[in-house]
Amino acid sequence: MKHTISVLVENRFGVLARVAGMFSGRGFNIDTLNVAPTQDPSRSRITVTVKGNDQQLDQAVKQLNRFINVLEVTDFQRDTFVARELILVKVAADSVKRTEVMQICDVFRAKIIDVNPRALIIEATGNPTKIEAFLNMLEPFGILELARTGNLALRRDPAAPAAE
Amino acid sequence: MKHTISVLVENRFGVLARVAGMFSGRGFNIDTLNVAPTQDPSRSRITVTVKGNDQQLDQAVKQLNRFINVLEVTDFQRDTFVARELILVKVAADSVKRTEVMQICDVFRAKIIDVNPRALIIEATGNPTKIEAFLNMLEPFGILELARTGNLALRRDPAAPAAE
Repeated sequence: MKHTISVLVENRFGVLARVAGMFSGRGFNIDTLNVAPTQDPSRSRITVTVKGNDQQLDQAVKQLNRFINVLEVTDFQRDTFVARELILVKVAADSVKRTEVMQICDVFRAKIIDVNPRALIIEATGNPTKIEAFLNMLEPFGILELARTGNLALRRDPAAPAAE
Repeated sequence: MKHTISVLVENRFGVLARVAGMFSGRGFNIDTLNVAPTQDPSRSRITVTVKGNDQQLDQAVKQLNRFINVLEVTDFQRDTFVARELILVKVAADSVKRTEVMQICDVFRAKIIDVNPRALIIEATGNPTKIEAFLNMLEPFGILELARTGNLALRRDPAAPAAE
């Protein structure tokens, strides 16, 4: 089962390598990970998605909580949360195919951020299901390059009604 | 000087920990990093931003190129590229302040993805300059939580005219 785990850490030298090393040391392959400073530059937030057995992941989360530079660990399986991902994708599209690709972008509210006679670079965001559907639509044209951030997640306020 | 480095790697166990460990082992503090599979699921792309001396970074890039699971390293200082970042931000906003926050979101083309009586969760994308400007506008309201992916980058085709 895929878990999205958010780890608030002190923004110190080597913390990321230690967190990533803990997951690989326990036999988890990290599917996606992202890290950047928070509103407080002395803290960073790491968002990881990993697949694995629930019990083994519980152990990993407990170990993370014992790390000295780790301030808070949230396993989002147990909370309501919003998740979004950003992708940049370069798609083959000459002048004949361009219109069709642009229509697909419109439907998915994706933005074209670069164009040349043979390709487009597209920026899109969404939850993982939407991103997969978008990439499936683009695949027949030819995906030349793809970069994705992996899931970014924030907890919804427990009292909050969902807006989506 | 801040560098954005893109590393195409084989999607193998422990590769991320090794790449992150190489940067921290050489004394670089990783500012942001993201990693996810590419269009070929056997490959992942890591995008890192690090600050450091150009010469020391050249050495780090050379060392990355020697790693067995590293397929390609691009230091974007030397290429034209597009960079985008995704943020999720929870901002304090009661019914009085909400209109003002929503106007700022309109200007920055940010989306409100959750709302409760005391706060909003907002999704925004942009280049680093835009994201900083947006966060500066939100700061007076009170930023309760912030998660950011860090830069995601793709090379522009050298022959391509810029669309932005």
